[in-house]
Amino acid sequence: MTTADDITAALLIIGDEILSGRTKDKNIGAVADHLTAIGIRLKEVRVVADDEAEIVAAVNALRARYAYLFTTGGIGPTHDDITADSIAKAFGVAIDIDPRARALMQAACDVRGVELTPARLRMARLPAGSELVENAISVAPGFMIGNVIVMAGIPDIMRAMLDAVTPRLKTGARMLSETIALDRPESQIADLFAAHQRRFPDVAMGSYPSMRNGRPATDLVLRAVDPARLTEARDTLKAALGV
Amino acid sequence: MTTADDITAALLIIGDEILSGRTKDKNIGAVADHLTAIGIRLKEVRVVADDEAEIVAAVNALRARYAYLFTTGGIGPTHDDITADSIAKAFGVAIDIDPRARALMQAACDVRGVELTPARLRMARLPAGSELVENAISVAPGFMIGNVIVMAGIPDIMRAMLDAVTPRLKTGARMLSETIALDRPESQIADLFAAHQRRFPDVAMGSYPSMRNGRPATDLVLRAVDPARLTEARDTLKAALGV
Repeated sequence: MTTADDITAALLIIGDEILSGRTKDKNIGAVADHLTAIGIRLKEVRVVADDEAEIVAAVNALRARYAYLFTTGGIGPTHDDITADSIAKAFGVAIDIDPRARALMQAACDVRGVELTPARLRMARLPAGSELVENAISVAPGFMIGNVIVMAGIPDIMRAMLDAVTPRLKTGARMLSETIALDRPESQIADLFAAHQRRFPDVAMGSYPSMRNGRPATDLVLRAVDPARLTEARDTLKAALGV
Repeated sequence: MTTADDITAALLIIGDEILSGRTKDKNIGAVADHLTAIGIRLKEVRVVADDEAEIVAAVNALRARYAYLFTTGGIGPTHDDITADSIAKAFGVAIDIDPRARALMQAACDVRGVELTPARLRMARLPAGSELVENAISVAPGFMIGNVIVMAGIPDIMRAMLDAVTPRLKTGARMLSETIALDRPESQIADLFAAHQRRFPDVAMGSYPSMRNGRPATDLVLRAVDPARLTEARDTLKAALGV
């Protein structure tokens, strides 16, 4: 269910380690939950390798298509962290050490009594025209340029940056949902459920099978932005199912 | 590190429930681990909604670009299961009940003493030219058409289908890896590590920061298909790091 005033988004996960299986992604679920809760519709996710051409192509495809593009990964201090340079290339802008980012990192180094080394300073390099996205955990900031929000890959830091940028985002109507849990295989309710979807075309209906206590079970999930329609669709479906 | 004789693959996850956050994906990590173990390089992952146009566009983009495309999700009996129809559309072929799939499902229904209802039979609809991919758990099969392997979204069933199709896949050299775990932040080793990458351009080197016991830690991961080069790169890096 997408309506004209929906605010849409895509998520781009950057990192060889997800594609090799070494690291199991936790950011897709966390970003999906957060965006759903604030009224932004996550429409697409991509995972690409630490490869500049791949990142540039994905960034330009996704930022043109959705209201926002969130990225995670590749903004650390090592040679395989190429996200900031790739974003600059995608936007066709220069990249250099940002004085605001440098000041934040210098202050944090002073407190800890450590040197702001060239490697650390690499994390202060931002594409021209970026706004900082605060990192409440480890200081080195994320950034927002145009409609693209660039965040760290470490889940705790990613979440801190997502919280920090949220007040700046335009949001739409929250998608509400209701779940009906059934102890039956979905093939038993498929026809009835399809008829119910035809009756409520403005309520998105999905069926999710699983095993509960060794027996087939089904969750029917109804989603809509209008609470009255959602309640009506849920109550009439429960009556039809006899639950 | 991709070489000319690498066998590449993409993974397409189909399902509104992943994008809404309701279901947390477990298939990306499982497919990544499996393909890495058998010598196929996973190069890209996409997640799209239960939307025919989105699925068709992603299938046609990815099957043209990689040796294999694996999909998960959307092959159940309910109205929101549109993967098989979308794949038929992407290939420009007809879709109908497949007699081999119907026979498998009829036999399983006979054993259980249940009827092969129209809803169940919906899971026997396959694009013309498909080969079955066995489902050792719940019988209703996946399928392979051209270089596209279509699997269920439920993780246990997906894994059974992935095992079933594996003997039919062309595989390349296995990517081997070595990890050096350091109790230091990655900014301390970034320059040395970048120099080491330049010395071994045929060994992919990634740095993965984390927190261990409340302190910054770094895993350095080296990957290559040549075991001798991998060992040499690891041993010289450990010597340079003094570990």
